[in-house]
Amino acid sequence: MTAQPQNNTPVRIGLLGLGTVGGGVVNVLNRNGAEIARRAGRPIEVIHASARNLDAPRICPLEGMMVTTNPMEVVENPDVDVVVELIGGIKPAGDLIKRALELGKPVVTANKALIAHDGMALFETAQKYNATVAFEAAVAGGIPIIKAIREGLAGNRIEWLAGIINGTGNYILTAMRDDGRAFAEVLAEAQYLGYAEADPTFDVEGVDAAHKLTILAATAFGMPLKFDDVYTEGIGDIEIADVNYAREFGYQIKHLGIARRRDDGIELRVHPTLIPEKRLLANVDGVQNAILVWGDAVGPTMYYGAGAGAEPTASAVIADLVDVVRTMTADPMHRVPHLAVVPDEVADLPVVPIESIDTAYYLRIAVLDRPGVLARIAKILADNDISIEAMMQKEMTEDERTLPIVMLTHKVRERAMNRAIANIEALDTVRGSVVRMRVETLKGA
Amino acid sequence: MTAQPQNNTPVRIGLLGLGTVGGGVVNVLNRNGAEIARRAGRPIEVIHASARNLDAPRICPLEGMMVTTNPMEVVENPDVDVVVELIGGIKPAGDLIKRALELGKPVVTANKALIAHDGMALFETAQKYNATVAFEAAVAGGIPIIKAIREGLAGNRIEWLAGIINGTGNYILTAMRDDGRAFAEVLAEAQYLGYAEADPTFDVEGVDAAHKLTILAATAFGMPLKFDDVYTEGIGDIEIADVNYAREFGYQIKHLGIARRRDDGIELRVHPTLIPEKRLLANVDGVQNAILVWGDAVGPTMYYGAGAGAEPTASAVIADLVDVVRTMTADPMHRVPHLAVVPDEVADLPVVPIESIDTAYYLRIAVLDRPGVLARIAKILADNDISIEAMMQKEMTEDERTLPIVMLTHKVRERAMNRAIANIEALDTVRGSVVRMRVETLKGA
Repeated sequence: MTAQPQNNTPVRIGLLGLGTVGGGVVNVLNRNGAEIARRAGRPIEVIHASARNLDAPRICPLEGMMVTTNPMEVVENPDVDVVVELIGGIKPAGDLIKRALELGKPVVTANKALIAHDGMALFETAQKYNATVAFEAAVAGGIPIIKAIREGLAGNRIEWLAGIINGTGNYILTAMRDDGRAFAEVLAEAQYLGYAEADPTFDVEGVDAAHKLTILAATAFGMPLKFDDVYTEGIGDIEIADVNYAREFGYQIKHLGIARRRDDGIELRVHPTLIPEKRLLANVDGVQNAILVWGDAVGPTMYYGAGAGAEPTASAVIADLVDVVRTMTADPMHRVPHLAVVPDEVADLPVVPIESIDTAYYLRIAVLDRPGVLARIAKILADNDISIEAMMQKEMTEDERTLPIVMLTHKVRERAMNRAIANIEALDTVRGSVVRMRVETLKGA
Repeated sequence: MTAQPQNNTPVRIGLLGLGTVGGGVVNVLNRNGAEIARRAGRPIEVIHASARNLDAPRICPLEGMMVTTNPMEVVENPDVDVVVELIGGIKPAGDLIKRALELGKPVVTANKALIAHDGMALFETAQKYNATVAFEAAVAGGIPIIKAIREGLAGNRIEWLAGIINGTGNYILTAMRDDGRAFAEVLAEAQYLGYAEADPTFDVEGVDAAHKLTILAATAFGMPLKFDDVYTEGIGDIEIADVNYAREFGYQIKHLGIARRRDDGIELRVHPTLIPEKRLLANVDGVQNAILVWGDAVGPTMYYGAGAGAEPTASAVIADLVDVVRTMTADPMHRVPHLAVVPDEVADLPVVPIESIDTAYYLRIAVLDRPGVLARIAKILADNDISIEAMMQKEMTEDERTLPIVMLTHKVRERAMNRAIANIEALDTVRGSVVRMRVETLKGA
């Protein structure tokens, strides 16, 4: 029997960033070094690392590695074979990765913002210098979702995907539902507990989810990264009343990233979404993530796990490292292409504007208690070809002058819904803005 | 920019078996040929196929391929680059695969029985001739679970996995629960509907699940395939009464395959299992499959999808084909090893005997309605260090002479439980055998 060729020389890693995820990577490499070497065929060792502040407290030991405050020194170190970038953000991470690639060094990164914004240029640089950028850790933490989509479902025409891809947002929505508390209160608690950043904008406004959706869609459809075309709505305006009304209809509100293939292009949208409470996705609570992917051959598949945290993210970083180590000396044609399809075949699919999507809707309308008000609303909906699937007219609450009409509609083109809502808001018996949320049935999953 | 090397010559497939899955593969390759070629970098075409009966009705067209009743002719055809084996069973599939490998041809197979029984020899032949055996489709249909475990979780020490890996069994258990019907009645219906084979032995006795568990464990722990060491219990003895009592305790009964790493070896077991109704696995119904995998870094992850069927299985076969096409001309060191770890590092971990495992238990004991009977049972349990977590004593049903005591215990070594049950069955106030099922809390998942 011909022995499988082996090379027991360690692969030498340069690690940029020694914070939560960087520390997690060091700890997991230390703890599971033997197991990882069995898989990669070679030991993987961090020999040089950078940190902003050398005196900051760390979750990992620094034995056996040089440490510097200058990340470019790590990139340029000729002994470093592979660079792992865990600094985050666009600058200076982008320049560091670019330089590593120019030196022919493969890069593993968890940087969703950078990949979503500048991935196309980085992939081109990587190809030019026969290197790779691996980014499993950029989406949904430890869930191997990029691998599943890019390789595991390679036989499919992927029709759509929908995911809970921001753990902070899902934690907040779960706590609002379970404890009946308002958004602001739960957010403050999440910040206190460390589940939400001091500046929670990226999480609650959906920017972080939009970064991840951009990457998922590009790999699912073999299209360029189109972050600027993602329609994004946050969860900051969700009221506890809507969480409760949704439940009365048998739905949960989740903050979903959705990408869907249509004849005329791709839908890319992040927004609060009502989904039937029986769906698996509706039962993904707290900081967990899950992505539902529908392929034409396989049907619905779902991938669930921790979307953030030191060691779950390290799990994805190290999986990428093992892949990179296995193929770094191979001809590029033997590697999985960055966007699932060979570079010449990346298709510049257009993104459909949000006004042109079709979804069902949840509406909450505050009305004065006058005869005929419901009839006038129903007429406006009918005039716009919107049919009502379910309706509840709630009791007036004390010291309120209005009462809420809550309804679910059948599917409608967004443009028609916008028109109908403008007309409803113009009625003299309607007060304030109409609350609206999209509904997805996720049928069959 | 250096162009990614490409080779537009089609890869020529020899397909053994034109039944449900074979037909599905042909149909998906036809329908998604362009999408698949974008990913593989080359078109993939079936040029030669074999079928037992050339005149049988088919779900796929046969245009563009030669068809024969002699599968060895396909294997030996010098124009065939890759062999796809979808005949199933040990003979003649094993000989056909062996011959293909000896000719240096990579093989893709969905044959769980063959891999579970003879995989080690086939992998050795593959290495000897610089070929590969890919078997994603052998476990859980279209769910890319082998890829997730072998590559996606490569940074982890995998602690345990638990899966619903037989769709027929899960369909039967779901129907028993939802319709309150007996096992035999639901099985007959499943056979009529085509969800169960005419000979359902492999499915209901757990043999099929044991094949799949063997493969999952080998890839999760980097150990040899040890089918003969799997402890297997079927679902044929589950009574509707137990399904209902389990629900009263807040549990669902699922037929699980479980593999767990312990200090002294690996647990490998397939048996009916009570799991808390809130777990995601408890909500996987009908013919769907799902596998929960716990890695020390990533924590719990779950993978859900169709476990059988023409196109879901074709999805896995084609994913393997794309991987094989991408690396067939590469040095073997650039390929993912069969059992996740490089061949020299496969560790011959012992399988723990079932008497040595520790689980909680569900017990149903038929007793005569006499004073002191419960006290005597409780004493036997206490004498064997078994503590009761919950207990229900049910009303006597009409025209029955016994009443059931139903309980959940805390964790206990199986040997002690066997002893206790023997003593309980020897009591003169106890009738018949004690019904027993293991309980797993699947905590944190």
